[in-house]
Amino acid sequence: MRVFICGMDGYLGWSLAQHLTARGHTVGGADIFLRRRWVEEMGSWSAVPIAGMRERREAFNSRYGEELPFWEQDLCDPDAVHDMLEQFAPDAVVHLGECPSAPYSMVDARHAVFVQMNNIVSTFNLLYAIRDLNPDIHLVKLGTMGEYGTPGVPIPEGFFDVEYRGRKDRMPFPRQAGSWYHWSKVHGSNNVMFACRLWGLCATDIMQGVVFGTSIDATDGDPRLCTRLDFDQAFGTAVNRFCCQAVTGHPLTPYGEGHQKRGFLPLRDSMQCLTLVLENAPATGEYRVFNQFQEVYDITELALMVQRAAGTLGLDVEVRNVENPRRELEDHYYEPDHQGLLDLGYRQTRDVEGEMQQMISDLMGHRDRIEAKLDALLPDVHWDGTRTKVRFLSREPAALVHGAPALAAASVALAPDA
Amino acid sequence: MRVFICGMDGYLGWSLAQHLTARGHTVGGADIFLRRRWVEEMGSWSAVPIAGMRERREAFNSRYGEELPFWEQDLCDPDAVHDMLEQFAPDAVVHLGECPSAPYSMVDARHAVFVQMNNIVSTFNLLYAIRDLNPDIHLVKLGTMGEYGTPGVPIPEGFFDVEYRGRKDRMPFPRQAGSWYHWSKVHGSNNVMFACRLWGLCATDIMQGVVFGTSIDATDGDPRLCTRLDFDQAFGTAVNRFCCQAVTGHPLTPYGEGHQKRGFLPLRDSMQCLTLVLENAPATGEYRVFNQFQEVYDITELALMVQRAAGTLGLDVEVRNVENPRRELEDHYYEPDHQGLLDLGYRQTRDVEGEMQQMISDLMGHRDRIEAKLDALLPDVHWDGTRTKVRFLSREPAALVHGAPALAAASVALAPDA
Repeated sequence: MRVFICGMDGYLGWSLAQHLTARGHTVGGADIFLRRRWVEEMGSWSAVPIAGMRERREAFNSRYGEELPFWEQDLCDPDAVHDMLEQFAPDAVVHLGECPSAPYSMVDARHAVFVQMNNIVSTFNLLYAIRDLNPDIHLVKLGTMGEYGTPGVPIPEGFFDVEYRGRKDRMPFPRQAGSWYHWSKVHGSNNVMFACRLWGLCATDIMQGVVFGTSIDATDGDPRLCTRLDFDQAFGTAVNRFCCQAVTGHPLTPYGEGHQKRGFLPLRDSMQCLTLVLENAPATGEYRVFNQFQEVYDITELALMVQRAAGTLGLDVEVRNVENPRRELEDHYYEPDHQGLLDLGYRQTRDVEGEMQQMISDLMGHRDRIEAKLDALLPDVHWDGTRTKVRFLSREPAALVHGAPALAAASVALAPDA
Repeated sequence: MRVFICGMDGYLGWSLAQHLTARGHTVGGADIFLRRRWVEEMGSWSAVPIAGMRERREAFNSRYGEELPFWEQDLCDPDAVHDMLEQFAPDAVVHLGECPSAPYSMVDARHAVFVQMNNIVSTFNLLYAIRDLNPDIHLVKLGTMGEYGTPGVPIPEGFFDVEYRGRKDRMPFPRQAGSWYHWSKVHGSNNVMFACRLWGLCATDIMQGVVFGTSIDATDGDPRLCTRLDFDQAFGTAVNRFCCQAVTGHPLTPYGEGHQKRGFLPLRDSMQCLTLVLENAPATGEYRVFNQFQEVYDITELALMVQRAAGTLGLDVEVRNVENPRRELEDHYYEPDHQGLLDLGYRQTRDVEGEMQQMISDLMGHRDRIEAKLDALLPDVHWDGTRTKVRFLSREPAALVHGAPALAAASVALAPDA
């Protein structure tokens, strides 16, 4: 299968290019390296040193004995998108070329507009290019579990059967996102759903959980093949941040009450799932939604798992909650489905604490790089528009005060200790 | 009350400026005359001749003895939006500055992207300016009943109580729009809803039905005070198009099967409703949704009403269906609520056929202008991306074949007669 990866220089994109090639697929892709610039803007860099695209492609060629077609093009340029897809003639396109950060989108008006425009326009350009070149190209669009928010009812995979005032219908499940970034993904999902209905395109919309992990098998053995690992407040995801904190001896820092629940999955499971999606394309005209995560975890539970994994490697770290810069429920009901990928054959690759041990072990060698930019880890971008570094909360670790009445759910104005 | 109108040069905007001033409110507004350019791009003009903004403001000054503050500024410019609101210091902002046309958004990729970007970015700029200047400013955002699509269950006003797998929650009602334009309004509604939750802004989101009408009391008596009346395929709405067809003796042309159901309301009722909304602001932090229409009508029913109204004025016109350029259900269930505005005191201003007679009478004097651009009325922008003039359907008028099995619902590939 010929797969075109948009955002091939990114955390998932660079991993996926190698994973698919190792599986025997033919890969090409595009990027203009915005992720590198965004992370720099947030005062950080990848904990794992990463090669430039030229060296990456040389290493790819050394390992697989074939060229990796690459276009340095902006996905917001409609002609560039059309021309790349025409030249590469893919069977499937994986859209990993969106800006993936909630905090980045909440910095100010300019960032909010940029994130929504970049994500919506790039998706539009792919939809039109696919319609015009070959409507049978399978579009795999990366959405996020965050599109759903945290409703008080179970979360199905995209659609649900509604009974309302005595009548029934099957409808899109309501989305209640929690940042401009998450809403950009909702807007994109809606546009892709409509394009499938309108033009008979086929697409899979992945509501992905939070991904963590430093490597997959395919990226091992040559440092030029490593993928990036961010730990800054905007592009570092929860477990990745915790592991980077652990190797520097910094406390692990859940936000607020610390009992937010989210679906999580290791990088290698994300690769497995995306491959299953690609190798099992939807029917013509089908818009298919999968919730993609391994399991739902409480954030504090994950912090304690990282703490234990670090302990087995001789690292003694504490868990200490900080003010929550976000506006979100901090202890809530959460029951999302994730049956679709299991039905396609998805099985957890390894146990989560084993994955965390691997990560911490991988990151130990880059401790200096993390310490050099550790200031970028704790957030200062608040959802109310202010910009001040969060402070530690003056209380026992969250795990000990589950359900403590002193903190109001969804409050972002928690009393700091200093 | 001080009301700032975005899009003050438009069909609704220019009417509202006068209606509110006549009610004793203080009005200011902005526009960069894009509507005039879009209609020209579609090969048409306003059936009712309209003055330029300088003459409009002179006439306004003559009638009310006061200046009408006006800014020729792009709502997509964040600094301009901030500065205008700072200078005018409104109690409320009415956002009529979006591109309101489904067909215009369906022309090609460039138009699709433009409509979504223009509508999303202008709304973002208003939200941020309100947050930064005065979060108590009431934002009145114009959405459309088209955001909901035509689901198989009743349509509430924005939110509904869901019971799903034994649990209950109050959630946003799922949106299933039918064009890139309608989706731009969904995206905007979602962003406004989130901003209210995020920053405690207060907003009313109007899911407005299709507006028709040539005038309101306040615009009578001075031709410079007249508002525009479009009849081209992109900016002319159904009843306005039918009335323009009637005065030229052209058949009235429902699309396809012709039993699409939509909420409609006369221009004077739209003014009444917007005024009620402004004079009854929501609470701080409240995001409120009203479905704004007078009644649900079947398109063919409206065509027959226009036919009768024309007949009373001595005009003999036929109803003749054309191919449907859109992808939509042509005969369907439709039960939207519209209780909120009734509770605020909305009452229908006059009977609909009386309004239609008034319109046809107003338009008789502009028959030459309509005939000169009549070619722009019948659509050539198809939802599948093709661009060919629709043809008449070779069958009896739609009213006689209600439920005819020969035509598949939602089909856009109906057999033309020539």
